[in-house]
Amino acid sequence: MKSVAILGFGVVGSGVAEVLAMNEDKIEKHVGCKVRVKYILDLRDFPGSPFESLVTHDADQVFGDPEVSVVVETIGGARIAYEYTKRALSLGKSVVTSNKELVATHGPELMELAKANNCIYLYEAAVGGGIPIIRPLHRCLAANKVVRIAGIVNGTTNYILTNMRDNGETYEDALKQAQANGYAEQNPTADVDGIDAQRKLSILSSIALDGSYVSPSEIHTVGISGLSLDDIGFAGKIGCKVKLLAVLDNQSEGKAYSFVAPHFVRSTSVLYPVEGVFNAVVVEGNALGEAMFYGQGAGKLPTASAVVGDILEAVMPVEAVAYAHNWVVPSEGERVTLPYEDAVVKIVVRSASASIDDMKKVFASYDTEAVLDDKDRKAIFVRGISNKDIDKLVASVKDAKWMHLYE
Amino acid sequence: MKSVAILGFGVVGSGVAEVLAMNEDKIEKHVGCKVRVKYILDLRDFPGSPFESLVTHDADQVFGDPEVSVVVETIGGARIAYEYTKRALSLGKSVVTSNKELVATHGPELMELAKANNCIYLYEAAVGGGIPIIRPLHRCLAANKVVRIAGIVNGTTNYILTNMRDNGETYEDALKQAQANGYAEQNPTADVDGIDAQRKLSILSSIALDGSYVSPSEIHTVGISGLSLDDIGFAGKIGCKVKLLAVLDNQSEGKAYSFVAPHFVRSTSVLYPVEGVFNAVVVEGNALGEAMFYGQGAGKLPTASAVVGDILEAVMPVEAVAYAHNWVVPSEGERVTLPYEDAVVKIVVRSASASIDDMKKVFASYDTEAVLDDKDRKAIFVRGISNKDIDKLVASVKDAKWMHLYE
Repeated sequence: MKSVAILGFGVVGSGVAEVLAMNEDKIEKHVGCKVRVKYILDLRDFPGSPFESLVTHDADQVFGDPEVSVVVETIGGARIAYEYTKRALSLGKSVVTSNKELVATHGPELMELAKANNCIYLYEAAVGGGIPIIRPLHRCLAANKVVRIAGIVNGTTNYILTNMRDNGETYEDALKQAQANGYAEQNPTADVDGIDAQRKLSILSSIALDGSYVSPSEIHTVGISGLSLDDIGFAGKIGCKVKLLAVLDNQSEGKAYSFVAPHFVRSTSVLYPVEGVFNAVVVEGNALGEAMFYGQGAGKLPTASAVVGDILEAVMPVEAVAYAHNWVVPSEGERVTLPYEDAVVKIVVRSASASIDDMKKVFASYDTEAVLDDKDRKAIFVRGISNKDIDKLVASVKDAKWMHLYE
Repeated sequence: MKSVAILGFGVVGSGVAEVLAMNEDKIEKHVGCKVRVKYILDLRDFPGSPFESLVTHDADQVFGDPEVSVVVETIGGARIAYEYTKRALSLGKSVVTSNKELVATHGPELMELAKANNCIYLYEAAVGGGIPIIRPLHRCLAANKVVRIAGIVNGTTNYILTNMRDNGETYEDALKQAQANGYAEQNPTADVDGIDAQRKLSILSSIALDGSYVSPSEIHTVGISGLSLDDIGFAGKIGCKVKLLAVLDNQSEGKAYSFVAPHFVRSTSVLYPVEGVFNAVVVEGNALGEAMFYGQGAGKLPTASAVVGDILEAVMPVEAVAYAHNWVVPSEGERVTLPYEDAVVKIVVRSASASIDDMKKVFASYDTEAVLDDKDRKAIFVRGISNKDIDKLVASVKDAKWMHLYE
């Protein structure tokens, strides 16, 4: 049994408690023992929460408990979070965080403190929410000189820019919309002025440059509040979209630079289709070439997913982390997955001569959707059908062919 | 100093030697000591190669040398590679490989052998070439139940399908083209019949299902050789593209299934834009939601990048692997990156009244390209300009505005 304490029970902190509970069995299997939340430290009470009984207001109780080996800092900001992180690390308790401000501002000191106290400070969730990017950049790309990073690392601004483009909304209206939908804070400065992106770029740059700390203060930053609908519309005329990019360029030896600014992104780039609240980071290594990491860059459970991944690394014996896990062969005559025939899938059925109605009738016991009704070709999607039932049903539609569908 | 031996000096094996040489300094900094290739075991000689002097035909010399702590298996296949891998692991030498056939076929036995001998068997390069996917799936997503994986994991077939679609080539012609360009083997069976994708899916599924080994023999597999131009053209009519997908579906408890088959992929999917020899794997976790890993799935240096990443993990003390590296603050008054003003960038300059010629004249000392020449709006790309020179030059173009360009 390993015990963790969550400091700050806001969106991410409560997500961490939820993910640990939701995937309890999977986590026990991965780590080799149970991982439980022993304390939740917050100024507030949470009557009615399933985690109510774990809430404490007494920091001394949390830090004084030798059973707590990992502290989850989801307070945010660089004041109380900074003090508590130093206190935990000084006591040899590993700290796991989603707090980009703290990592970007005090990372070097906190990492050194962790090392000196034989514990670790992990921050996978600080960039890209749940998207794995810190660990892949640091470990999987360790053989590369990173020559370029370009990232859409702030979902709020990307959401605003997507809405300006798709719905012709002005910046002010799109911002209001984002606030109404919970994608922007009431005080949106950190997002729209690029400060959040600046912090994330500070973290990515410091890793990419092999631990040479790039302070946020080194990073020239321009936000999106100066953008007009004319800028957005014009981008389309030259085959581009406007995106707020965090860029590290390290192509010329000794001439690395980092900045955050709106860019025209060409349609040939893999960043071009990244819309709404999604994040994507392109990393170019001198051996790897370009790779991209894409997903939801924020949100309660996605961010908690990354925090909990770090918790598991922090509680596991170092050997277990470094080693890949072993695979267990099923018993003789058994199998892990269903036989193909029993898998329930989605397919496209098409025919040159049958009507949509004919086709829908044959697949009446499934979820169907007409997708093409040309004179010489009809097609439907069929969802929820077992592979074993496909062939005989398709055979009863005149001239029909089928293929699996992925959507 | 850490010594490694490369078994099999083909495309990937020689790439590994090249990457270790090319990024020697960076690697020494990351690991904390030099990593050198001590032996290259191959049946052939390589006269003229910079690594000629390391070549040996004597396996006993390699395995008998206690200095060799990591063996790189880039032989391929599941015969000699299997014997050598067992021999190395039995001796407590960690093995790193790009050999998906061996991992998919004998993974469980080899991982157990590694554990029993206190060493590790790593295979990041076996899926997705250089794209980090094995480690992120195993470690960063450890907090998730993986509910779905869908991957374009074979570049050869994706290249053929892209050419059929874009150039109207038949399957046979597109295959010949792929062979001529070195993207398909002379015997293309393993690729076009989906066997390569099957092996990769076996590996991904076994990790996603927490170590329950999904043998390739469990995976129903259909290749692309039966596809017609009509299939490809039809896909376009319903807003899809045809892609060979490796799918693991684990949405219903106890009803996981894995199969490889051509799919119609809808334009709303993030897999839709993945073209040519690129690979992409979408992973859906129950906390994370969807994330995608994208990049070059094959090739000498990209694949070697992943192999060398594993080598570094294998040679490092486990503590160093588990812990994030520390960041070093530059001396007082110094900075890591160039000041913004000195960064050399690309921009778009646009004007409602200046002509293209006017604009090109102002930016004559840079690389310029006209991109829009409408009656009421002109625009050029300017490449290679310093940020500090932008404003004053743009000011000398009538009614001009500018923004950074990312391409």
